Amino acid sequence: MTESGLERLLPCASWLKRYDRNAAREDVLAAIIVTLMLIPQSLAYAMLAGLPPVTGLYASILPLLAYTLFGTSSALAVGPVAVVSLMTAAALEPLFPAGTPEYVAAALLLALLSGLVLVLMAALRLGFIANFLSRPVVSGFISASGILIALSQIRHILGIRGSGENAIETLLAVVRNLEATHLPTAVIGTASLLLLYLARTRLKGWLQRLGIGNGMAGNLSKTGPVVTLLLAVLAVTIFDLAAAGVAVVGAVPAGLPAPTLPAPDAELALTLLPAALLISLVGFVESVSVGQTLAAKRRERIEPNQELVGLGAANVAAAVSGGFPVTGGFARSVVNFDAGARTPMAGAFTAIGIGLTLALFTPLFRNLPQAVLAATIIVAVLSLVDLGALARTWRYSRPDALAMAATMLGVLLVGVEAGIVCGVVLSLFLFLKRTSEPHVAVVGQLPGSEHFRNVLRYQVVESPTVLSVRVDESLYFPNARYLEDKIAELVGSRTGVRHLVLMCPAVNLIDASALESLEAICERLHAAGIQFHLSEVKGPVMDQLRKSDFLERFGGLVFTSQYQALLALDPQTTLRAMEGTR
Amino acid sequence: MTESGLERLLPCASWLKRYDRNAAREDVLAAIIVTLMLIPQSLAYAMLAGLPPVTGLYASILPLLAYTLFGTSSALAVGPVAVVSLMTAAALEPLFPAGTPEYVAAALLLALLSGLVLVLMAALRLGFIANFLSRPVVSGFISASGILIALSQIRHILGIRGSGENAIETLLAVVRNLEATHLPTAVIGTASLLLLYLARTRLKGWLQRLGIGNGMAGNLSKTGPVVTLLLAVLAVTIFDLAAAGVAVVGAVPAGLPAPTLPAPDAELALTLLPAALLISLVGFVESVSVGQTLAAKRRERIEPNQELVGLGAANVAAAVSGGFPVTGGFARSVVNFDAGARTPMAGAFTAIGIGLTLALFTPLFRNLPQAVLAATIIVAVLSLVDLGALARTWRYSRPDALAMAATMLGVLLVGVEAGIVCGVVLSLFLFLKRTSEPHVAVVGQLPGSEHFRNVLRYQVVESPTVLSVRVDESLYFPNARYLEDKIAELVGSRTGVRHLVLMCPAVNLIDASALESLEAICERLHAAGIQFHLSEVKGPVMDQLRKSDFLERFGGLVFTSQYQALLALDPQTTLRAMEGTR
Repeated sequence: MTESGLERLLPCASWLKRYDRNAAREDVLAAIIVTLMLIPQSLAYAMLAGLPPVTGLYASILPLLAYTLFGTSSALAVGPVAVVSLMTAAALEPLFPAGTPEYVAAALLLALLSGLVLVLMAALRLGFIANFLSRPVVSGFISASGILIALSQIRHILGIRGSGENAIETLLAVVRNLEATHLPTAVIGTASLLLLYLARTRLKGWLQRLGIGNGMAGNLSKTGPVVTLLLAVLAVTIFDLAAAGVAVVGAVPAGLPAPTLPAPDAELALTLLPAALLISLVGFVESVSVGQTLAAKRRERIEPNQELVGLGAANVAAAVSGGFPVTGGFARSVVNFDAGARTPMAGAFTAIGIGLTLALFTPLFRNLPQAVLAATIIVAVLSLVDLGALARTWRYSRPDALAMAATMLGVLLVGVEAGIVCGVVLSLFLFLKRTSEPHVAVVGQLPGSEHFRNVLRYQVVESPTVLSVRVDESLYFPNARYLEDKIAELVGSRTGVRHLVLMCPAVNLIDASALESLEAICERLHAAGIQFHLSEVKGPVMDQLRKSDFLERFGGLVFTSQYQALLALDPQTTLRAMEGTR
Repeated sequence: MTESGLERLLPCASWLKRYDRNAAREDVLAAIIVTLMLIPQSLAYAMLAGLPPVTGLYASILPLLAYTLFGTSSALAVGPVAVVSLMTAAALEPLFPAGTPEYVAAALLLALLSGLVLVLMAALRLGFIANFLSRPVVSGFISASGILIALSQIRHILGIRGSGENAIETLLAVVRNLEATHLPTAVIGTASLLLLYLARTRLKGWLQRLGIGNGMAGNLSKTGPVVTLLLAVLAVTIFDLAAAGVAVVGAVPAGLPAPTLPAPDAELALTLLPAALLISLVGFVESVSVGQTLAAKRRERIEPNQELVGLGAANVAAAVSGGFPVTGGFARSVVNFDAGARTPMAGAFTAIGIGLTLALFTPLFRNLPQAVLAATIIVAVLSLVDLGALARTWRYSRPDALAMAATMLGVLLVGVEAGIVCGVVLSLFLFLKRTSEPHVAVVGQLPGSEHFRNVLRYQVVESPTVLSVRVDESLYFPNARYLEDKIAELVGSRTGVRHLVLMCPAVNLIDASALESLEAICERLHAAGIQFHLSEVKGPVMDQLRKSDFLERFGGLVFTSQYQALLALDPQTTLRAMEGTR
């Protein structure tokens, strides 16, 4: 393998050559901040995924090392994230009771499948499939997932039962069980919520007022969640709240995860494949967006196709080390970036931090109340909810807003997978509908000029024998038949027309369907005694047309400009219009 | 209801007002020709659909009257057609044994569902859904269906067993059973094939050489199939071939069909719905193409949305009169047109012809050999097979050819529904892939002019501080992220750039995803110290951008031309380039 080939497959081979003590110092600092943020989040997202909390830590070691080897973003922080954890739970809960060995094994298989899907997409260069997820669909999906997740955690905050098949059922179940609120749990839960909220919004300011520098204050404020966690553990231990009925994490096995192998169950794999596909796509889209934004701030670039390899490797790594599906997290990546991460090595250092946590601090988690983890989740996901986006999108583009609303309703009322499928199908559908009726204008000559404009908007001169039609869209199957119909309509409403010139300055493509439509249009015009011509055809489109026999058979001419077409086909009217004043 | 409203819903209200004796004479003549062609075809297509042959005649009465009331094409001949009959068999055969009462009842339900789907599409103005079926997919589907149908009929020609799950199995079964060929059947079958082939290709020429006029010779040659049928009946009757083992149609109930009501079986309806949807779409696409072509020859127009109503009504009519799914047939419509049909009344007269046949001539069909019907099918469908289309499409456009090939392989190796779904999905997929990487060019000023051209193709002047980029595609979700990446790449490879101007003359749409991409691009450029501008934005696109706050927030300018942009941002270079010679 050539050196550049090696560097393409293993981007670390490139940056490791220039890696020095300075970079290491900055990466280590960022890793410490991210580790402190990741500990509560990874435990919480494992709980959200219906898995033992310790699997969250497992999913934060080997996957991070894998991404360090294969990834291209210097700031992306890989690991468990809220939306993917929710999707994991949605995929597995219909199959097995949460937390059972079968459930845990299926999570491994799901991670393996996601990893393989991502690597396969990289190998086949299919990263563009992520384009199927339009922004409004992704935005609606994340907002609705955030709401769904937050609702699902209320019961842990209050120490009650309260879950349902969809958002409304969950909300109703919570309301119905409200009187059963477990007071000590609720105190810990709401206090944690308050502390986490203040840490996120106010702590940095307070620290600055104490005279701490901006950067340091920002970094210190990121330790808010881990401090909240420690305070809660302390409270539970001192007051023996576990005995009082506060749900805690309980015994956590110490030490690094044993190597695991997902069960080679072909039938289960087939069942999980659609979920794995959606998890891969959503995870990839999220990762790439944040990765690109952060890279641009340093005038770096990420390589989307290599990101597929990096995220794929991370998921395969999760599958063989007791984890579950992972991806690049939005908030953690921003923190990693702000804290000064210089290379993907920061991720490897974070993995070491989590490894040390597993080796040394697991006894601490025995008395960790689940309510704190729920509060961690709620504060994290509510920052993802952006309901205003729906109104903004509605003002800008109705079809996009409809796709967004359908996604949100699907997620809230049916489920995450139904929501995203619904959004993708609707956005494709509305997109095809939109391009299926392109803007087609009859144009005429602006007096005293060589320009042709829409007869409905401008005072222009129309030739009585030459019909000039401009189409403002590429010609392809979604609109091929519309063009036929539109031209039939235009010709049908006019008499005396001898020539029709189709002006194509905005036509970037003519596919095989449109070519047949052009042939049909041409044939029908001939039958009606009208000759068909083209004008202002772009170079690449012309090149493609030459590959067919259309140009020889259609009997018309291809003019470089509409003016030249009119000059050739109806010189009298055209020259008279040129003499007119503008 | 206003008069025009009535005429829109019932187009016959319009043409009946002008209907006179002349039109009636021409319509009756055309109806006679079409009836003689329809009798063998309707019996044969019913057999192909796995139904008693007489249902083909039933499907050729009420549906034709319904289309006369609601349709808009003066020449479209509605009734059983080969491809839809094949799709009917494919939908029903997995559910019930062919020919059983359950099978017949399910065919009625399928017709009803198809009718309702079509009417619903009309009510919701969803006719554009037919655009999902690109031309290459439809063409591949019809060719492959033709091959599949022809293969399935060989056993009837030879009087052997020989059917399979797919085209290859069917072919192998025929080869394996070849030695069991039933000689009398094979003689009748091959003789019929020969006669039908000669009638189709030579008869008109022979008749003309006998001194018969062109029009009359054409019409007479259309009676070839019915004459072949009569000859076969005669042969079977005279030589008592039915007793010798030649499979015949057998007793056919005389008289018009009794009114039927499809079983209101919701579960079966749900099972049949996907098939009904595909049958509706394929039938609609076929009908509209032939209808538009024939209408254009007379400078008439058909109204696609009203065609949905007409075909929907025809299928509902088939469901209540013992028929099965119908649509406008290609060959019969052309014959109807050539024979001089002036209005949809020709269809009503054809219905009367079939009604008379049912009342008077059914005893004839008792001794009608199935081999003749099989020969009728083979000769009809082989004219639909166009394998050359694959090569032509491949030369013109690889993605279109791939979609076509996938459809054909799907139909031949798996089945008709799988084939069409495969083709539609692949064509959508390749379409998105194609538009996901639009042509993006860095442009520079042509010396001595205000024009900007691709720096890779022309000798142009580039400003050292202003990067001019032209994108040749609408900006929407399939390519939104690509643009971000491409611009990051262009900016990353240059130093000293202070401004980036995106030239948008070919951008017909900027959807919400692309708007967010533009915002992201803008933000990332700002972070790198570069200001983002737009130029040559089209009116409607500008109108839509004004609905967002992008124009206020992006901090750049929107120039009417790239030249003005450069004049404002780097006057020195621009004016110096203007002084240069072209």
